[in-house]
Amino acid sequence: MIAVIWGSTSFHAYKLGSEGNVEAERTSARGAVAVPAGGFEEALKQEIGDWIHEGDGRVLLSGMVGARRGWKEAPYVTVPADFDRLVEGVVRVEAEGMDARIVPGMMAADENGVPEVLRGEETQIFGCAGEVEKFARVCLPGLHSKWVRMEGGQIRGFSTSMSGDLFNAIRASTILHACTKHEPNDDDAFLMGVERAKQSGELSHHLFGVRTLVLTGSMKEAGASSFLYGLLIGHEVKAEAHAGEMVHLIGDAKLCGHYEMALLAMDISSTIEPQGTALKGLKRIAARLEW
Amino acid sequence: MIAVIWGSTSFHAYKLGSEGNVEAERTSARGAVAVPAGGFEEALKQEIGDWIHEGDGRVLLSGMVGARRGWKEAPYVTVPADFDRLVEGVVRVEAEGMDARIVPGMMAADENGVPEVLRGEETQIFGCAGEVEKFARVCLPGLHSKWVRMEGGQIRGFSTSMSGDLFNAIRASTILHACTKHEPNDDDAFLMGVERAKQSGELSHHLFGVRTLVLTGSMKEAGASSFLYGLLIGHEVKAEAHAGEMVHLIGDAKLCGHYEMALLAMDISSTIEPQGTALKGLKRIAARLEW
Repeated sequence: MIAVIWGSTSFHAYKLGSEGNVEAERTSARGAVAVPAGGFEEALKQEIGDWIHEGDGRVLLSGMVGARRGWKEAPYVTVPADFDRLVEGVVRVEAEGMDARIVPGMMAADENGVPEVLRGEETQIFGCAGEVEKFARVCLPGLHSKWVRMEGGQIRGFSTSMSGDLFNAIRASTILHACTKHEPNDDDAFLMGVERAKQSGELSHHLFGVRTLVLTGSMKEAGASSFLYGLLIGHEVKAEAHAGEMVHLIGDAKLCGHYEMALLAMDISSTIEPQGTALKGLKRIAARLEW
Repeated sequence: MIAVIWGSTSFHAYKLGSEGNVEAERTSARGAVAVPAGGFEEALKQEIGDWIHEGDGRVLLSGMVGARRGWKEAPYVTVPADFDRLVEGVVRVEAEGMDARIVPGMMAADENGVPEVLRGEETQIFGCAGEVEKFARVCLPGLHSKWVRMEGGQIRGFSTSMSGDLFNAIRASTILHACTKHEPNDDDAFLMGVERAKQSGELSHHLFGVRTLVLTGSMKEAGASSFLYGLLIGHEVKAEAHAGEMVHLIGDAKLCGHYEMALLAMDISSTIEPQGTALKGLKRIAARLEW
């Protein structure tokens, strides 16, 4: 079979052998937002048509490909939801020469009733397999980080923080543009930003401090982007994580490493899950489907 | 004499008669950031050279023109500072055919020792004349809003919030770009955003809600930019203003009107100062200088 993770801005496909072994892997920048309406089947065939032709035709997809503006909407499964509910929500797409299925996203609401959605992260979470039964708090860092509450292998709710997206926007378009051009690779400055986030004052006020600290020579400009990054993640972690929790971090190792540092600075334990949870999740779902 | 308000992105000059009456007024988009180093005298003469030639040569300027990268640095006056201290800080610039002086900015530190700066707002505050003796809390809304603490006519400290700059950056470069294209002119949606800011959760989380509320049909897209604006100003006001305070709002009437609404939604009284405080401040300073 073929496993596909098709997000907003990226496409990632795995050709799997009969034992679930990865025989080939392909990545492309053709994310779901780059595909015109009605063009998903053709785009998929352009990316991996040869694999589909050679194989048994089974294709399982997750991510934004199942959104309303994706290939076919795989309606959100509402929380609380366990692995069984997720599998029940998988939808089949009519397509020539293949048996394609799409994993649904999930919908929740925060404590004030404001809706929450995710797509793709559900596959990663259940890709943690047996361990997931013991999870209470999961964080999937990214442009839009997801903070998930779980109990007994069930997703109970989640909350999104736009820190990553804000980080890029602030560097691109605000007064901090000029002083945050360096790559954010200074861990000491990152931790200074996290410490600043622990202090009183709201985010919009702390942001202006990035400029004044550089302007007055209190911070070197080379560290300003790392400080800004720490400030944003610090505010996020301060609001979402709580003392005594064990946070399971899922995602890119470097990104998770920054969250681990920020959590540690707030005396909160965390562990970074092994890489490859999306593929493991797709395999686990595929094994439960009647093809 | 001539009074000039020369900010980062705009130039505003007034030709004043002997009674302080405005004889002529000129505005241009040539802000201080658009002037190359060493080019301020020439830029000023291009804008108002004819006025300088006709008049007695006195020119008083305030704003970013006095920054390190401006015409000549007018070093920040540190708080606490009253009107006398501000007048003492005015610097003279060598320039042909005129007697030019620049009003200094002010420097403070927030409760955690992070530096704070302003340039131009000091002139507006002291432009409120006699009343300023009674001010305790002043807010000058803008791209970088200033929240000022005063006592007995003295500026004791201030805090900056980047809400306006963030509002523009979020609409320009984040996932909210697509749903916040409408002009922010829906007062009901604005107030919904302010109410949302009063709820639990940090700003980066509340921001993602703008998308999900539109996605799920809970909010019309036409109101999303106003909601976002209310959210940002709401978080700012919640952090900066306190029950029982009377906030004096100085600045553009429409902008101040939005802050007045947000403050009222949090049961905090405010009053909008009459327009023209910058010019009044320059006249008041000019009257105290020895030309």
